[in-house]
Parts: sequence; structure tokens; C-alpha cells
Amino acid sequence: MQSFQPPRRILMGPGPSDVSPRVLAALARPTIGHLDPEFQALMEEIKAALQRLFNAPDHACVPLPAPGTAGMEAAMMNLLEPDDRAVIAVNGAFGGRMADMADRAGARVVTVDHDWGRPVDPARVEAALAEAPTKLLAFVHAETSTGVRSDAGPLCALARRYGALSVVDCVTSLGGIAVDVAGWDADVVYSGTQKCLSAPPGLSPIALSKRAQAAITGRKTKVRNWLLDFNLLMSYWGGEGGRTYHHTAPINALYGLHESLVALFEEGQQAAIMRHARVHAAFAAGLEAAGLSLLVDAAYRLPQLNTVVVPDGVDEAAVRAHVLKHWDLEIGAGLGPLKGKVWRVGLMGASATPWHVRLCLTALCEALAAQGHAVDAAKALAAADRELAA
Amino acid sequence: MQSFQPPRRILMGPGPSDVSPRVLAALARPTIGHLDPEFQALMEEIKAALQRLFNAPDHACVPLPAPGTAGMEAAMMNLLEPDDRAVIAVNGAFGGRMADMADRAGARVVTVDHDWGRPVDPARVEAALAEAPTKLLAFVHAETSTGVRSDAGPLCALARRYGALSVVDCVTSLGGIAVDVAGWDADVVYSGTQKCLSAPPGLSPIALSKRAQAAITGRKTKVRNWLLDFNLLMSYWGGEGGRTYHHTAPINALYGLHESLVALFEEGQQAAIMRHARVHAAFAAGLEAAGLSLLVDAAYRLPQLNTVVVPDGVDEAAVRAHVLKHWDLEIGAGLGPLKGKVWRVGLMGASATPWHVRLCLTALCEALAAQGHAVDAAKALAAADRELAA
Repeated sequence: MQSFQPPRRILMGPGPSDVSPRVLAALARPTIGHLDPEFQALMEEIKAALQRLFNAPDHACVPLPAPGTAGMEAAMMNLLEPDDRAVIAVNGAFGGRMADMADRAGARVVTVDHDWGRPVDPARVEAALAEAPTKLLAFVHAETSTGVRSDAGPLCALARRYGALSVVDCVTSLGGIAVDVAGWDADVVYSGTQKCLSAPPGLSPIALSKRAQAAITGRKTKVRNWLLDFNLLMSYWGGEGGRTYHHTAPINALYGLHESLVALFEEGQQAAIMRHARVHAAFAAGLEAAGLSLLVDAAYRLPQLNTVVVPDGVDEAAVRAHVLKHWDLEIGAGLGPLKGKVWRVGLMGASATPWHVRLCLTALCEALAAQGHAVDAAKALAAADRELAA
Repeated sequence: MQSFQPPRRILMGPGPSDVSPRVLAALARPTIGHLDPEFQALMEEIKAALQRLFNAPDHACVPLPAPGTAGMEAAMMNLLEPDDRAVIAVNGAFGGRMADMADRAGARVVTVDHDWGRPVDPARVEAALAEAPTKLLAFVHAETSTGVRSDAGPLCALARRYGALSVVDCVTSLGGIAVDVAGWDADVVYSGTQKCLSAPPGLSPIALSKRAQAAITGRKTKVRNWLLDFNLLMSYWGGEGGRTYHHTAPINALYGLHESLVALFEEGQQAAIMRHARVHAAFAAGLEAAGLSLLVDAAYRLPQLNTVVVPDGVDEAAVRAHVLKHWDLEIGAGLGPLKGKVWRVGLMGASATPWHVRLCLTALCEALAAQGHAVDAAKALAAADRELAA
């Protein structure tokens, strides 16, 4: 058994994205104790930074000590009690996962199913909410499995109108497109670190409204899991009246998240969102010039997660293998009904740069050419460059 | 908001322990994708290394993507179904936590309560097992709250005799004293990374016997949590027939765990255990020479977690503040009924060295002297040195 030396990789799949040298360096700073006064000050700084990041000044914001799905599980398990009614919009893999978790919480789950690749339809969600009193409405803001953005504001407003708490999955959206928790008046919003924040995977930032907190403290039954029970978690992260030991925070992972937030605020949140939009436009222009197309309509397409349609007669796995072998480039496969039909190309965080666009177009064109599918790489790059210069 | 630069700290509390430069360096290696062939090879190496570490060649071993308590929660939630009977031995904070989790799983929980500072009594456990058919017996091998070792082999044998599955918390024991899963014939054993393995907190290595796996696949009800559901987890970590996406593994944290295991096997597991015993003996000799005493009887004392009795008239918090201020040294406070009565001094992993023993004795003696409690530091160090030279 020997030390592991990872190979060079350019990460343009659905996550993780490239982690910048400054965040990697932060991970390697010496571990200190989780009850250390200086670490507790860091916790306070991270909480305030997450409030700013989510635009959630009145929400309780903490990073959960586990990957992005922990945020989803925390939302479902803390808000739902047995026999509560939950309406879950499903338009991809992650909506389906939400429904599974709500079922484990003991809820009566009503799914509103959509074709993969389409945004959540507020009219159909409203019809489900109107049927019976509902505790919770959940949906995915940015579906990582399809590249679709759903319109969060109107959906959260529907939840309010029907007396339900809203849960919004922002794992792939946060940092890449606008996430406006206060503007949406959303109740529970969570994300991951390995997408547009470009920190390593392993933490799940989450925001809870005062309504959500009241629902949790007012539960009749215990939350079914312990590590993600907010009644316990907040006595550790809350900070008021001293901290009660709950778990041992993942110290070095939190150094990394903190540094990624420092970097994001240095750039500016709005500037980062513009950067994601700009490199996406260049990538889309390059794809079009190469005769390739995106699955999702431009109106609700995510700039940071591009589902590229596999042309007829092309072996999609061979293309992924080619770009990995010759360019050290990772792109993602399709999931579920999109398996074999699309590639998922991430332009997230530190991977959302013109360099990444140009490399990926070059590699994709070469891989297609290797299968006898003639594409003009020079034309694709020129189209991307024109868009970047605009 | 600025980059965080942690202060120098010497970590001799109940965890985290000092993380070595080589493990810190491993954390900072470039992130690669969790579906990357090279990362999947790393996963296989970690699984095999954990089997070796636990001495569990026939168990399924994986690192859960969350701190040590995730191992406890995974054990309770996966093995227990509503109305199952669970016998939990409680002789400290972590036994109590196990009982809380078993209750959340819907089990009928029977606790066998002991005074804090005493090991689990097999006779009393047997009496509880004999009362009614029992699904699970759980206990803590190394109680981090008290510094007590319980005898795992006989307790696991009792579980087998009464047809129960055994769950053994080895968070603080693994790497510091012998953990022999095969020898104990234990069913579920879990640990953390931030104690005697000296990796940062954030992962929970766990081992499951074939009996435990059969109990999980044969459940009548869904596991109540999703992230820690072994039916899903093992389709990701199992590796047979390809991996099914479940969560995104915490890549860089796993680099750190891997490197800590490489370091441990280089030293030798038995050599590491001897080192823990040796530095503990030196520390105990130094304490005795200084007129201080340990709470726990030598027969079941943990070398890696020393509960030092606070002398009458000494302000224990002031001592901790003194050693932190003047020596950058972290030691732990007592928990629960031991609050204010003991300090918890860790000699774990990279913090289990003669240097740490000498520094801690020096700092403790100075802090006590500052309160007018005269102790002879030179005598304490000489006693420790004699033990180290022996």
C-alpha cells in the first residue's frame, strides 16, 4: 500500500468541479479542535457567509457535515412527521430521491411527475396542493440529472398560499445562477460544496427559515435521524448560550469551504454568475457550430450543467473514454431515461472558464472524429471565441 | 472576510488529535471525480485496508461520508426495525447516545446502566439478554467520555449466545488498542478518523458481518435514513457489477484517511499499539509523581484517553485556559457527571509521543502552580522519562 497520487484531471462532469489551488491549500492547514475558540469564530464566520451566499439574512445557515444529499435528508426528516402530506415535484433523478426520503420520514407522499428535461409546472403543482392540506412542497431548482432550471419564486409562493413549507434543492445552482432565498421566501434551501462553489465534496450548506425552525421545535415526534436532527445540531452550531457537543465538525473540510467562500466574495457573487452565463454561451455556440445540440430549451437551461445530445450512431461511452484518455478530461454520462442519450458537461465554479470551454470543445470534436463523425473543431472554437469576445 | 490561518495547537483533548504533515499534504492533492477509474481503485484499496485495520477479513468495510457518530447511527438504523428489542449497555455519554438512536429507529430499548468510569458488566448484560428475544446488543469498547475500556470479546459472545447482533463502538479504540473484529466475532463495528488514526474528523470507517448484511437485506421496512442505508451504500461502495451512484464521496477526506492508513501500516499496527501503551505509562508515572491521579482503574484504563482527576480546590477551566494560552495546548473537559471533575487528556495517534507527554506534564504542572497548587514539574518529567527509558 502506497501513498495515492491522483492523476491530472480536468473536471467537467456533474461534480465535483475543479478545486482551485487556494482551496486545496486551505484543506492542508493544521487541524485544530472543534471546541477551540478560534474554530468557533470560524464557525460564526461561515454561518454569516452562508447567509450572504443564500441571500438569507433571517435564516439559520449551517454547513451539514456530509455530502449534498445530507441537506435533502435533513430537510425531509426534520420537517416531516408520520402521516404528514408531502407534495414532491419530480422532473429528474433528484426529485425522485426526495420522494424516497419523504416516504422514509413516514409522510404521505404525492409526486407530481414531469418528463425529464422539462421544468416543474406550477399549475400542476398547484393542483396537487389544492387537493388536501399539505405540510411540505419540495422541488429541485437546478436538476443535475437533466440540466433544467425550475422557477423557484412562483413555486415557493404556491407553498405559502397553501400553507405548506417549501424545500428547494439548490445543490447545483448555488454560486452558478441566482439563488435568492429571501426573495423567494423559501423555507429550507440546501446545496453542496463540489459544484459551483468548487470546494471538495463532503459538506452540505443549508438554510432554514424561522417558520421551518418553529415547525421543527414544535414536532410531536423525534426526528428519525440523529446526526441531522436540527434540535441537536443547532445547539452545536447555534452558538447562543454556549455550544453543546453534538458531533465533531469536519475541521479541514470547513477550512476548504471557508476559503472557497472568501474567493467567491472576492470575485463577487454577481460577477461569478455572469461568468457562468458567459462561458455557457460560448460553449453552446461552439457546440452549435460543431453540429451538436443541447437537450434543454434555452429558456430554462442551466449554464453550469449542459446536457449535450449524443448524435445518432455515436458510441457515447467511447467518447467519454476518449476525452479521459487523451485529454485527462472528465465529462458525465446521462442518468435514468437519459442514459446513453446525453453527455453532462459541467461548467461550474473553477471549471467555468474560457480555457475549459475551448479544451472541452477540442476534445469532444476529436473524440467524435475518431468515430468517423466529422466535425470541424476549428469552426467550433471560433464560434466560442466570438461569443467570449462579445 | 479573509483566509483563515489556524493558530498552532497541540491537540491532546478527546479528539481530534494532531494530524501529521503527510496526511495534511494528502488532503491537498487535486480533487478527482468520484466515478474516475483511479478513484474507484482507491476505494478498493481503502476497503481492503479497513478490513486489515479492523482484522475483519470477512466483513464489508467502508468509510461512511460523515463523522464517527454516523457509524453509530448507521448501525442502529440499519439493524433495527420498529418493535425490535435492543439492549444497550450505558457506561458513559456514548452509550446514552446509542440508546437515543435505537429509540429513533423505533426499537424497544432496554438500557443496562453503569456508573460512569466503570466498564460494562457482562453479568448484567446477560441478565437483560435473558429476559426476552433481542435483536441487538450494543456497547462502547472505549468510552471517550470516561477513559474506560470494556471487554469486547465476552460481550460479543453473549450476543451470539442469545441470538442478538452485536454493535461495538470503537471510535476511540481503533489504532490505539487492539480491535479484533474477527476474534470477537462482532457484527457491526465502527470508528472515527480523528482519534488514533490521526486523520481529520469527517469519516466513519465501519465493518459489517455477513449476519449483519443478511439482516439488512432481509428487512421488512425501509431503513429510516437514506444517506446511511446500507442497501444503497453498498451498491456504490460494493463494486460488484459496477457502481450505482448514491452520494458523491468526500474525495479529499478519503485521500487523508488513505494516507493515515499507509502511515499506520508502515509503523505496524502492533507497534502503534505498543507506542500508545508506552507513552500512557510515562504519562501516568509523571502524573503520579506530581501527586495527580487517574479516574479509571489500571485494569480497564484506556492508554489513549486519560481522565485526570481535578484536585480539590483547583479551578479546572482555568487550567485548561492556562495551558491553551501559554502552551497552545488543548486538553478536554469532563462531560456529564464528570464535568468539572476531570480533564480528558488524549494520547492518540500522532499525539501519542514522548514529546507530547513531556509538554503536557510541564504545562499541567505550571497551570496548577499558577493556582498555588504546588507540584514538582521536574520530578514529574523525571518519572515519565524513567518509564520511557525502561
